[in-house]
Amino acid sequence: MVFTVTTGFVKAQTDPLPSWNDGKVKHQILSFVSSVTDPSSADFVTEDNRIVTFDNDGTLWAEQPIYAQLLFAFSRVGEMAANHPKWQTEQPFASLLKGDVVGALTSSPNAAEKIILTTQTGMSNNEFKSLARNWVLNSIHPETGKKTIDMVYAPMIELITYFQNNNFKTYIVSGGDTQFIQAWAELAYNIPPEQVIGSQVKQTLKIKDGQAQIIRQPEFKVMNNKTQKAIGILNQIGKRPIAAFGNSDGDLQMLQYTALAEGKRLSVIIHHTDEEREWKYDRKSQIGTLDKALDEANNQGWLIIDMKRDWQTIFPER
Amino acid sequence: MVFTVTTGFVKAQTDPLPSWNDGKVKHQILSFVSSVTDPSSADFVTEDNRIVTFDNDGTLWAEQPIYAQLLFAFSRVGEMAANHPKWQTEQPFASLLKGDVVGALTSSPNAAEKIILTTQTGMSNNEFKSLARNWVLNSIHPETGKKTIDMVYAPMIELITYFQNNNFKTYIVSGGDTQFIQAWAELAYNIPPEQVIGSQVKQTLKIKDGQAQIIRQPEFKVMNNKTQKAIGILNQIGKRPIAAFGNSDGDLQMLQYTALAEGKRLSVIIHHTDEEREWKYDRKSQIGTLDKALDEANNQGWLIIDMKRDWQTIFPER
Repeated sequence: MVFTVTTGFVKAQTDPLPSWNDGKVKHQILSFVSSVTDPSSADFVTEDNRIVTFDNDGTLWAEQPIYAQLLFAFSRVGEMAANHPKWQTEQPFASLLKGDVVGALTSSPNAAEKIILTTQTGMSNNEFKSLARNWVLNSIHPETGKKTIDMVYAPMIELITYFQNNNFKTYIVSGGDTQFIQAWAELAYNIPPEQVIGSQVKQTLKIKDGQAQIIRQPEFKVMNNKTQKAIGILNQIGKRPIAAFGNSDGDLQMLQYTALAEGKRLSVIIHHTDEEREWKYDRKSQIGTLDKALDEANNQGWLIIDMKRDWQTIFPER
Repeated sequence: MVFTVTTGFVKAQTDPLPSWNDGKVKHQILSFVSSVTDPSSADFVTEDNRIVTFDNDGTLWAEQPIYAQLLFAFSRVGEMAANHPKWQTEQPFASLLKGDVVGALTSSPNAAEKIILTTQTGMSNNEFKSLARNWVLNSIHPETGKKTIDMVYAPMIELITYFQNNNFKTYIVSGGDTQFIQAWAELAYNIPPEQVIGSQVKQTLKIKDGQAQIIRQPEFKVMNNKTQKAIGILNQIGKRPIAAFGNSDGDLQMLQYTALAEGKRLSVIIHHTDEEREWKYDRKSQIGTLDKALDEANNQGWLIIDMKRDWQTIFPER
């Protein structure tokens, strides 16, 4: 028989979300978690059904001026160029090597895809994850001068911890590559690889010298965006989330799938409104377009985080 | 501060695998688990890397004379026939409705696929799971007269519990439909929906009367077999298993991916050798063909469970 004895220690009432300004948004999040975790509440949800999903780019970390996975691809072009002399004259690589990102991305309709597939496939999953982790830990953001790993949002890290402390299972549901995110999500967010749902390239199994490796192939297989986010959640988790956070039209179906069902629900939009501390963009941005999902949030009365108003700090102070 | 006080209770040394006969197979499994969970062992594996994967049909429950998911489809044909008068003359349904399973399955090369897609799509995921759960709990196996849920293997249920008690995360990796298995795996095996990796049909999101539902469409999208099993594991778990159990050539790549890497590894084949208590089949069986994987098991020295020799009981006594 085991007795657990708690001696003379009373946990102080501390604010679980100190980076959030007081106001409607913070209070509604706290109130949602209280009501679904209080066994005496009509809205109580058992621990095995406490699922919360988060988009990644623009929701957990910055996505401007361009998605991190694409910045990672640019840095790989630089590293690989010495072994690819033809790139000096071949687009989109030629423009990239001259530092002309806009020229590279506008050189053909599929320039971004070509850069990603050329630089992020052909190696084993293990090698790719190691490259991705090193890049996220050591690269410098082109506009802020911060390390990429420090471009995460401090209020969202607090929120993940807060959900976890209330026995929620926290998932990332991203349009980014699954293995790219698995490589560093535990470090950045305390979210383990098995709680990452992302896009996938084609993969093959290779056995060489008695070792089996999974090799990334230069072809997209699953694009985890829009409706696929809801489907990916259903197949990988097998349960409907009760809370979801996103910031763009690519998250709309995940937010609908979460909100439009029985029981207490929390679908939340992060609205990028702070041109001084971060970036200000929504309907007309090419990166993280927030248009239909903003309309639906307004129609449905979903919670909208106004970054400028609701977040006391944005990036962690390290 | 928290003290944990253990008072006057010593856990008896009990056999964690009582349905297994003593012998090499049982001892090697026990020895593997001991060595990877002993912090003083050179083979010690931290808890977050203790991943074990199990095939389902023929590994955790019986697959003869035909896969359960197909038997479920046959029973749906019977239930749906009244609303489909054309089925009386349309193959493969006409033969099925006369009780001629062989005639139905040989009526065209894709007869089985047609029966599954016709009877297991067109409804929401929730409706499908409810139908599947009811069928597994209430249907009767055509040869043994047991309930379908009682066609699980008692020694494998013990093994799952044993791994879980040693802080392994237990996954099902099956060629069967993900949602079919998610519907009853927690009940049958104590494996939650998020630890099921299976095949998928195409799915869509439908919003009606303010409710969002995922609807199953009559088209296969992911066939989780052979190489896809290893790829599915990597993408859904993000880690390589250290132990894996399978019984057919469809499991070969999962077993190779598990075995052919650094560190202590356990890849195991379940060989159906007991024509009295279960079924006896391997290289020439159409269901659960075990040919190349049996050769590889012999070449690599993988453990082979001989059901007749190694299992004291096969099905649970209820």
